Amino acid sequence: MSTQSPAPLLLDPQVVEGVLARIAGRIGARHVLRAGDDVASYLMEERGLFHGTTPAVLRPGSAEEVAFVVGECAAAGLPFVPQGGNTGLVGGQMPFGSLLISLSRLDRIRDLDATDLTVTVETGVTLARVQEAARAQGCLFPLSIAAEGSCQIGGNLSTNAGGTAVLRYGNTRELTLGLEVVLPDGRLWNGLSRLRKDNTGYDLKDLFIGAEGTLGIITAAVLRLFPEPRQRATALVGVESPHAALALFRRLRSVAGDALTGFEFLPHFGMEMVLRHMPGTMRPLQGDHAYYALAELTSTRQDDDLSAMVLAVLSDAFEAAEVEDAVIAASEAQAAALWRLRENLSDAQKYEGGSIKHDVSVPVSKVADFVVEAARRCEAHMSGVRVCAFGHMGDGNVHFNLSQPVDMDKAAFIATWEDFNRIVHDLVASLGGSFSAEHGIGLLKKEELAHYKDKVALDLMAAVKRAFDPKGLANPGKVLMGR
Amino acid sequence: MSTQSPAPLLLDPQVVEGVLARIAGRIGARHVLRAGDDVASYLMEERGLFHGTTPAVLRPGSAEEVAFVVGECAAAGLPFVPQGGNTGLVGGQMPFGSLLISLSRLDRIRDLDATDLTVTVETGVTLARVQEAARAQGCLFPLSIAAEGSCQIGGNLSTNAGGTAVLRYGNTRELTLGLEVVLPDGRLWNGLSRLRKDNTGYDLKDLFIGAEGTLGIITAAVLRLFPEPRQRATALVGVESPHAALALFRRLRSVAGDALTGFEFLPHFGMEMVLRHMPGTMRPLQGDHAYYALAELTSTRQDDDLSAMVLAVLSDAFEAAEVEDAVIAASEAQAAALWRLRENLSDAQKYEGGSIKHDVSVPVSKVADFVVEAARRCEAHMSGVRVCAFGHMGDGNVHFNLSQPVDMDKAAFIATWEDFNRIVHDLVASLGGSFSAEHGIGLLKKEELAHYKDKVALDLMAAVKRAFDPKGLANPGKVLMGR
Repeated sequence: MSTQSPAPLLLDPQVVEGVLARIAGRIGARHVLRAGDDVASYLMEERGLFHGTTPAVLRPGSAEEVAFVVGECAAAGLPFVPQGGNTGLVGGQMPFGSLLISLSRLDRIRDLDATDLTVTVETGVTLARVQEAARAQGCLFPLSIAAEGSCQIGGNLSTNAGGTAVLRYGNTRELTLGLEVVLPDGRLWNGLSRLRKDNTGYDLKDLFIGAEGTLGIITAAVLRLFPEPRQRATALVGVESPHAALALFRRLRSVAGDALTGFEFLPHFGMEMVLRHMPGTMRPLQGDHAYYALAELTSTRQDDDLSAMVLAVLSDAFEAAEVEDAVIAASEAQAAALWRLRENLSDAQKYEGGSIKHDVSVPVSKVADFVVEAARRCEAHMSGVRVCAFGHMGDGNVHFNLSQPVDMDKAAFIATWEDFNRIVHDLVASLGGSFSAEHGIGLLKKEELAHYKDKVALDLMAAVKRAFDPKGLANPGKVLMGR
Repeated sequence: MSTQSPAPLLLDPQVVEGVLARIAGRIGARHVLRAGDDVASYLMEERGLFHGTTPAVLRPGSAEEVAFVVGECAAAGLPFVPQGGNTGLVGGQMPFGSLLISLSRLDRIRDLDATDLTVTVETGVTLARVQEAARAQGCLFPLSIAAEGSCQIGGNLSTNAGGTAVLRYGNTRELTLGLEVVLPDGRLWNGLSRLRKDNTGYDLKDLFIGAEGTLGIITAAVLRLFPEPRQRATALVGVESPHAALALFRRLRSVAGDALTGFEFLPHFGMEMVLRHMPGTMRPLQGDHAYYALAELTSTRQDDDLSAMVLAVLSDAFEAAEVEDAVIAASEAQAAALWRLRENLSDAQKYEGGSIKHDVSVPVSKVADFVVEAARRCEAHMSGVRVCAFGHMGDGNVHFNLSQPVDMDKAAFIATWEDFNRIVHDLVASLGGSFSAEHGIGLLKKEELAHYKDKVALDLMAAVKRAFDPKGLANPGKVLMGR
């Protein structure tokens, strides 16, 4: 894992000044931020793992201005890093000597069509704004992640963000019909298709999605909308093990089918952290349980009784001794309170000292086995380490996080990061899983990528990178090895 | 349009003989078919537009044998064309002097997991066999196209096949989790992931899907399954216009939401052709109607009453004078009979003389406008031409087919193909649509691709091709311009 900022690239100051002058002439001098200006927020990564450096933060205001900025960089051979809401967890948005291109000013919702169920948005629109715009027209944009208030669509696309509704609606990739992209040479590709079917040549769109800005800069996208659900049922269930949670998942899916839109889980330790540290949270069930499952069902139909459906399934599960206790939200407010328990988990963990995090996925059928075995191996490796394995069980996606032993020094714990990585990721690999389910590679995981990824796939990735960015200027040193 | 077979590539016979001898040594001489052997079925394209030529048909029996065959071709610089069930409609599967690699012997279903909802199949398995294997485990593989009895999964993947359930389940691309691919240099890439979430580098899988064999040969895939629907409701509705059909689509989607899995339409002329020419078909409604919509709803829930839901929607639509007459299937047999009317349409058209076909898509909101305007322009261009516009209204996908005027010479009509292409495809382009929604490019539409596709996209496609296949050996002369 690259948990330290690399030495910054050294650019020729004269070349840089010339390029910045031309860029200022096009996008306005006030949109070229230099040292002394307010650039700190662009260069600080949330977890504090990385501190960026840059000669300037550039804030173009349109796709054409992005194309101009990138074209100038390309002509002068200057590397550049695109940045959205700066909420990424793997350092992909941090410049180390490169120019930083902030996309925040590309913030228009260009079009929303409720018949086509599409919305065309610029890259700097926050996820929450897209959700709101859809809702205002009776539609749903189902992508939902913890950072949705500040993360931007361009970042969601570049990292193929997942979240809590993947089970039913898919990742960001599956929610995207078309893209507009500035290529590393400054050309603008207009691929803003609204079509559900279009078999005219190679699928270029999906190369840019999840490429973390290393193949170009996404400036706009056509996203899929869905009819807004008319009903929702949310249940929090206490169970004795991850295996019991998985059994409940199967049972619910079998009865509810597509109506099951989310199935999350968290452990006792996670629940306790949230209740201890996060104001406004309340214990959902009377007793304690080893694990908790959070299930959400939605329906777009007019006359439907989802709560009755959930109740029937839970009754059967009680009889089969698969669940210990459960509550079904009786109101939107109660449902929101249940979701807060899950959504506050990452924040709550900050109060328990150092944490070492893994964002992994395995086939759904193996998720419970994985959680049990990974916990056993980690606890065997370090006495007192506190495992908090939670996440999106229905997608096989586990945030396998470790909090430091209570009495341990934080830095000493963090120093064992590599050891735990190897333990967890080796197990994941042996189960046919992924060491990065939804957060991407960035800087943090590029050694893991080099270690675990199929070598033929790495060769093909490098070939694509060379084909699209022969000078290696787009987000250098990210995803792939090398600078 | 390339409606003639190109002049065959000329290969050095000595080189060919040497390569074939080595291949025969590995895969068995009986799997190397030469002139005089039974190769005619491999070289004849269904519509008779193209006649292939090849020095030999190679039938490897495993992914490793495919890798060996391709490796030998690569070492000797010999071009090769992969072929599945030979049901493609654009000539992509035809060799013109290249070696032909038939994938039919890679026909194992390697694994099916009903918890993970995945099936791992080799490329030569027919679509119908995948459907059956899923059904045997209580699962659904939703891809469904007219050729499903003989087309193979490898061809479905290479053309990103669409079909009748795209509205709910997506194209083949959305149904695919992982691939195994032999690259043009003979290396084997194992990307058989079963994961729902995996953000570890560029999305290579989606480059091969829809690439029509020009970037490598798909040898196996992990496909997504779904819970098998427990209920189904099928309705055939007579309406006065494409706009009325679109209004019914909106109305149904609004009430039924995700339960609406298919929404097809066909015109009066299409219905008459089917009833006239296809044995065993029966008039579904008493009177005649300008257009017919075929709606299918499915549900995975245990207690559900889809027919009642459809009936309620149709009652409202009657009152709004949006529909003229309707029938809801009372049995599986009746539902199958209704679907036969739609599925037999392409075959029925063969009995009406020459036909010029377009497989186009537009945004869903524009599909009715398109059908009306395209018909108007075509009828203005040639008096007596008979328009049969039908297809997947819910996806915006129209098969805009023209039957020759009754008294016209077939060859004279076919000679006007280019004119009608320009009329129809120019209109499609002006509506932001695609001139190839689900059939692909192959040989037939590569001039259209060069004409209509964004030039930057064409450059990127060429860059990908060079990166993956620098010698240009994989399915040469298909999709992209050049040989």
